[in-house]
Amino acid sequence: MENRGYFDNSATTKPCREAAEAVMNAVENGWGNPSSLHFTGSEAESILEDARANVAAALSCKKEEIYFTSGGTESNNLAVFGAAYKMRRLGRRIVSTAIEHPSVDSALDALAAEGFEIVKIKPDRYGRIDEKYIYDAVDSDTILVTMMLVNNELGSILPVRSIKKAVSRAKAPALIHCDAVQAFGKMPVKPSALGADMVTVSSHKIHGPKGAGALYIRSGVKIQPRAFGGEQEMKIRPGTQAMPAIAGFGAAAKAIPDLKQSLERAESLKAYMLAKFEENGGIIINSAPDALPYVTNISVTGIKSEPMLNFLSSKGICVSSGSACSKGKKSRVLAEAGLENAAVESALRISFSRFTTESEIDYLAGMIKLGQSEIRKIR
Amino acid sequence: MENRGYFDNSATTKPCREAAEAVMNAVENGWGNPSSLHFTGSEAESILEDARANVAAALSCKKEEIYFTSGGTESNNLAVFGAAYKMRRLGRRIVSTAIEHPSVDSALDALAAEGFEIVKIKPDRYGRIDEKYIYDAVDSDTILVTMMLVNNELGSILPVRSIKKAVSRAKAPALIHCDAVQAFGKMPVKPSALGADMVTVSSHKIHGPKGAGALYIRSGVKIQPRAFGGEQEMKIRPGTQAMPAIAGFGAAAKAIPDLKQSLERAESLKAYMLAKFEENGGIIINSAPDALPYVTNISVTGIKSEPMLNFLSSKGICVSSGSACSKGKKSRVLAEAGLENAAVESALRISFSRFTTESEIDYLAGMIKLGQSEIRKIR
Repeated sequence: MENRGYFDNSATTKPCREAAEAVMNAVENGWGNPSSLHFTGSEAESILEDARANVAAALSCKKEEIYFTSGGTESNNLAVFGAAYKMRRLGRRIVSTAIEHPSVDSALDALAAEGFEIVKIKPDRYGRIDEKYIYDAVDSDTILVTMMLVNNELGSILPVRSIKKAVSRAKAPALIHCDAVQAFGKMPVKPSALGADMVTVSSHKIHGPKGAGALYIRSGVKIQPRAFGGEQEMKIRPGTQAMPAIAGFGAAAKAIPDLKQSLERAESLKAYMLAKFEENGGIIINSAPDALPYVTNISVTGIKSEPMLNFLSSKGICVSSGSACSKGKKSRVLAEAGLENAAVESALRISFSRFTTESEIDYLAGMIKLGQSEIRKIR
Repeated sequence: MENRGYFDNSATTKPCREAAEAVMNAVENGWGNPSSLHFTGSEAESILEDARANVAAALSCKKEEIYFTSGGTESNNLAVFGAAYKMRRLGRRIVSTAIEHPSVDSALDALAAEGFEIVKIKPDRYGRIDEKYIYDAVDSDTILVTMMLVNNELGSILPVRSIKKAVSRAKAPALIHCDAVQAFGKMPVKPSALGADMVTVSSHKIHGPKGAGALYIRSGVKIQPRAFGGEQEMKIRPGTQAMPAIAGFGAAAKAIPDLKQSLERAESLKAYMLAKFEENGGIIINSAPDALPYVTNISVTGIKSEPMLNFLSSKGICVSSGSACSKGKKSRVLAEAGLENAAVESALRISFSRFTTESEIDYLAGMIKLGQSEIRKIR
């Protein structure tokens, strides 16, 4: 079907031209094993290291601080388990939030079952975290603080920058991890400015292909590897690197345009969309006014998520209910934010990319309006 | 540099045309998130499920028994840890061999540190495992037997089919895992015929792209997931699927030609090569006469691996010393097989694919001969 409005960029993005070309080049010309000592290996290795340099540049960090993985889930698992196991002799508390991605949240639940003490800070109505709770939660026994930078369902921006001060104040030995998957490519993600020891990023959320991600690990920080095998990725992540995807990831990172300009554009597109929704009527905005403008969660009063999603899909429009990982289940994040059940059940996430246009938004608002009458008619 | 003889197919293979096209189609047309409920998601999901069907068909198993991962290392880790942790209440012995891939071998070392009792059966001079040692090793306390089907450095074929009988005879609760990465696409790999509960296969060893692999898990067999996150891959392996690589993997699996015919061709190419080496003189064959003909390990008397590898590379030929994962280190597998140090230090692995030609072999033998005189001259 023809894509007439793609508003599910928080689930995945369309690979940009640069990424698609890099994937194809890696498949056709750079298909060697980067660990091989002959020229076919060296050619692949140079593609791999170029990609690493491009991702490092996008994060303003050193090339040696980038460890490639298969994606955001693996990076988050590696950071959380790797830090917890490495630091376990220094304490047992881990501080996080109640609205993390499942790859952090359920990793924490697994650690809780092993005896770690997990504190999940509750969000406000908009999925925002008050920094004062970080100060309350971090104590001298805290070995890890893990917090996302932008929430994937509500777009709220979390106070990651306050963690380092809280850790210092508590004299905690804690490492700091930030899941920046939804922020990367959309707002500045500079580990040193965030005060983070580890940062997770993913290729397919920045117009790269699926199958590659990275974990930034600050120079000098040691964590325990989670997988066992060869010595790839500086002995932190074994296994032959996912070359075509990594090559595409590097190209996508390099293609990230000026963030300030694209953020302003996203702000004005969001305002444009909200004005259209206001005209439609019957639409509640669940995201905060100060959320990252790329992600807007709404509830269409009286219409459940799935029939509206399916109606829009039949018109060539892609939006989501909740996150893609939970495939249609009721949103844990929205429940944690304290939304009423009716709002949760009719929630839709509309997520922009830098390629989103006003005319797509016109079509979206029009089709939601049509849905508001058509779907009611059906009932 | 122009590739004039690629003999490192055990390290990685060149993606076939079918795989390259499938990757590009997934990047350009099937880039949705397979978990998304809208049409862009469904289109990606159908590519994903086609790939699963193709891999299942190549293994003569059910589609639902194929779990996609990022590659062989992840599949092996998942099988070994997943089975050990699931079965730990039933016993503590795990039986394997001393010549497994590092992603099995070092996973077993990690389990040994946790209190599991690991038995690694020693190979003979050619890297073969005598089935009688399996009967000796498996006892009623054994919860897992993990054995590769074809060794990656010597090409020896291991007696995986005997495991099931040994397990029955010992009345062991053991699950059986087979790392079939080097066998898949080259000889029949049918889990039910092997008597295996779990089988590892990898895309980039069968002319698919890097970044995808699979673990076959027999219907009804339960193992513990190794990663935590979303509900992808039937709750066994979370994370958005590596779509372009998986699409290529499926296409590569579908493109595997008649195994009997290509095996006969490889046998005759091996005989042709050995005759050439005989003419050269000064070359010891480390692989067994009954090894899989795709992998031949040799030692060029008096010339260390690395200078010969580099010399051949300068002539457009790719071979390896040991395996790619250990990047130039001395081979553990050859040492375990009891090769003399001199033979280990001058070992080269020559690995064919179904695309290897006689003229490539002529060129290889000629250049090795040139190296035999040139490299000696340099010394």
